[in-house]
Amino acid sequence: MRATTGWQSHDHSTVLTRVPIERRDLRGDDIAVRIDYCGVCHSDLHRVRGTLFDEGDLVPGHEFTGTVTEVGADVSAFAVGDPVAVGTIVDSCGVCAMCEVGQENFCYNGATSTYGLNRADGSKTAGGYSREYVLREKFAYRLPAGLDPAAAAPLMCAGITVWEPMRALGVRSGSRIAVAGLGGLGHLAVKFGVALGATVTVLSRTPEKADDARKLGAVDLLHSDDDFAGARGRFDLILDTISAPHEIPPLLHMAALDGTVSVLGYPGQIPLRVMDLIYGRKKLSSSGTGGRRGTAEMLAFAGEHGITADVEVLPSGRISDAFDRLDRGDVRYRFVLDLSDLD
Amino acid sequence: MRATTGWQSHDHSTVLTRVPIERRDLRGDDIAVRIDYCGVCHSDLHRVRGTLFDEGDLVPGHEFTGTVTEVGADVSAFAVGDPVAVGTIVDSCGVCAMCEVGQENFCYNGATSTYGLNRADGSKTAGGYSREYVLREKFAYRLPAGLDPAAAAPLMCAGITVWEPMRALGVRSGSRIAVAGLGGLGHLAVKFGVALGATVTVLSRTPEKADDARKLGAVDLLHSDDDFAGARGRFDLILDTISAPHEIPPLLHMAALDGTVSVLGYPGQIPLRVMDLIYGRKKLSSSGTGGRRGTAEMLAFAGEHGITADVEVLPSGRISDAFDRLDRGDVRYRFVLDLSDLD
Repeated sequence: MRATTGWQSHDHSTVLTRVPIERRDLRGDDIAVRIDYCGVCHSDLHRVRGTLFDEGDLVPGHEFTGTVTEVGADVSAFAVGDPVAVGTIVDSCGVCAMCEVGQENFCYNGATSTYGLNRADGSKTAGGYSREYVLREKFAYRLPAGLDPAAAAPLMCAGITVWEPMRALGVRSGSRIAVAGLGGLGHLAVKFGVALGATVTVLSRTPEKADDARKLGAVDLLHSDDDFAGARGRFDLILDTISAPHEIPPLLHMAALDGTVSVLGYPGQIPLRVMDLIYGRKKLSSSGTGGRRGTAEMLAFAGEHGITADVEVLPSGRISDAFDRLDRGDVRYRFVLDLSDLD
Repeated sequence: MRATTGWQSHDHSTVLTRVPIERRDLRGDDIAVRIDYCGVCHSDLHRVRGTLFDEGDLVPGHEFTGTVTEVGADVSAFAVGDPVAVGTIVDSCGVCAMCEVGQENFCYNGATSTYGLNRADGSKTAGGYSREYVLREKFAYRLPAGLDPAAAAPLMCAGITVWEPMRALGVRSGSRIAVAGLGGLGHLAVKFGVALGATVTVLSRTPEKADDARKLGAVDLLHSDDDFAGARGRFDLILDTISAPHEIPPLLHMAALDGTVSVLGYPGQIPLRVMDLIYGRKKLSSSGTGGRRGTAEMLAFAGEHGITADVEVLPSGRISDAFDRLDRGDVRYRFVLDLSDLD
């Protein structure tokens, strides 16, 4: 086994403790990665707290960039020194219908999460809030040249989570899309939408974000009930990145004929009446992170268009501060941990 | 005013009473229609009983065929003696975004229903369980030659309700679709699906309907929990025509990557978890009847392919028997009232 260190939660507290971590010895197709930067995802906060289900103590982190430090005997795609990016899954069965079409994130046999409890076999994985990771090369991606590795880390969860539904739902030049919530996911959705040629509107209860929205390329920010009521049927796609419980019908109201509301930020219950969908033949959808095909495509697009997250980089030892401020919405738009303080 | 007669409910009883009805004198663009046949829709039963909301006493009926008996001075599309079909709406604002694209059924200002309470102005319309109807020519359709007028009546609600989502969701040769529930809507969905070139599977808890499903052109009928579990991800589109409250997640389980479950038979609450949509990026949708464009297209397709409903025709005086048997599911697959007994 290989020894490294990382930050672990204890009894659902957001005060994390530095702990020793063991990584497996390299298999033939494994690479070892020195983790340089890891994004702080809102779901890390939910999962540390056990909001949805109890995974016990966790070493979080599932959007990171780093440098290859060692390669297994059969590795073909990477060499020592390569800059890489890793997202929310690190293995899958490889043979089911979802894996066959490059949607390993929906693997019928259960993909292996980059961190946390793997319900298929009860094992637990330590994540990217650590200095080293070992994974199959298949689930690592070369970081495109020109992208800042700290600002690129959030592409691997926040970015791909908004990218995949935009592509699956056909966002292109001329699409009218709205992004509800301007946070980690939302600000990347605006950037990707604009780069794809869509007309992007931000929906937010915080009118003070209007300038930011426009700087990101959005044409407008709608914030009031009157704004929302007046935007009936305006958007082909609404990417709902709001992470707190909220009402879906006001968003459906703004969807166009045959339009879609894709719920990406909140994984809980949705009270819904069929009537909310009937008029306008609307669709409610969701999606979570991405498969290998979509992730590679997203990274290539980000490289080509110079798209990364707006980040605030903190030494990893300050993870508790990051959690506290994230909880208050005090970040524009993503915290990224610099793991070099673990050396 | 013009005098006719019809069948009216009283205090939510399904025993209807024959009553005199007044129709308006013809305006310039109106036609008068002698109603020959009117289908008995499951929603008629719900609405007479006031299950969803209380409309008071009703003369139901919103899928009928008949013969033009008089035309207004400005009518251009119809002449006396023409065979016509009328569906669930008889007017709309004509100027909103939905009317402009031929989706008058979703009119932002509220389409006028063929029967019942019009919530926009509190007026009430007497429907097709009567001998004569007066409406704007714009909302009447020429019945295609060769279609039996009794068997064609249900196309105007049951038929268009399944046709529009199939078209909007791109059903075509090679599509893998499922039809949940084999009743008035369901059996027409199978016929349309097969004629569009799709591979159609019926989902029903009544295995005895397997022979019927195959006769209609379906390749299979799945009925058990095991069947459903084994059909994970199998269908691009599931048309859910079940009229009673039921669970949606087992249907979502059978939807393919980016597949859709369209809820068409039950307009109530849907308890849903976002998780039911995430894995496979699935969509939940709904739809209700159709606009002028879709209805004309559906009728042309039905005429070309000889598609009508499988019906049991009863004298209109036996409407209460029809309601009782419909309530027990004892009809294959649609009751149609012959209104000639009202002369």
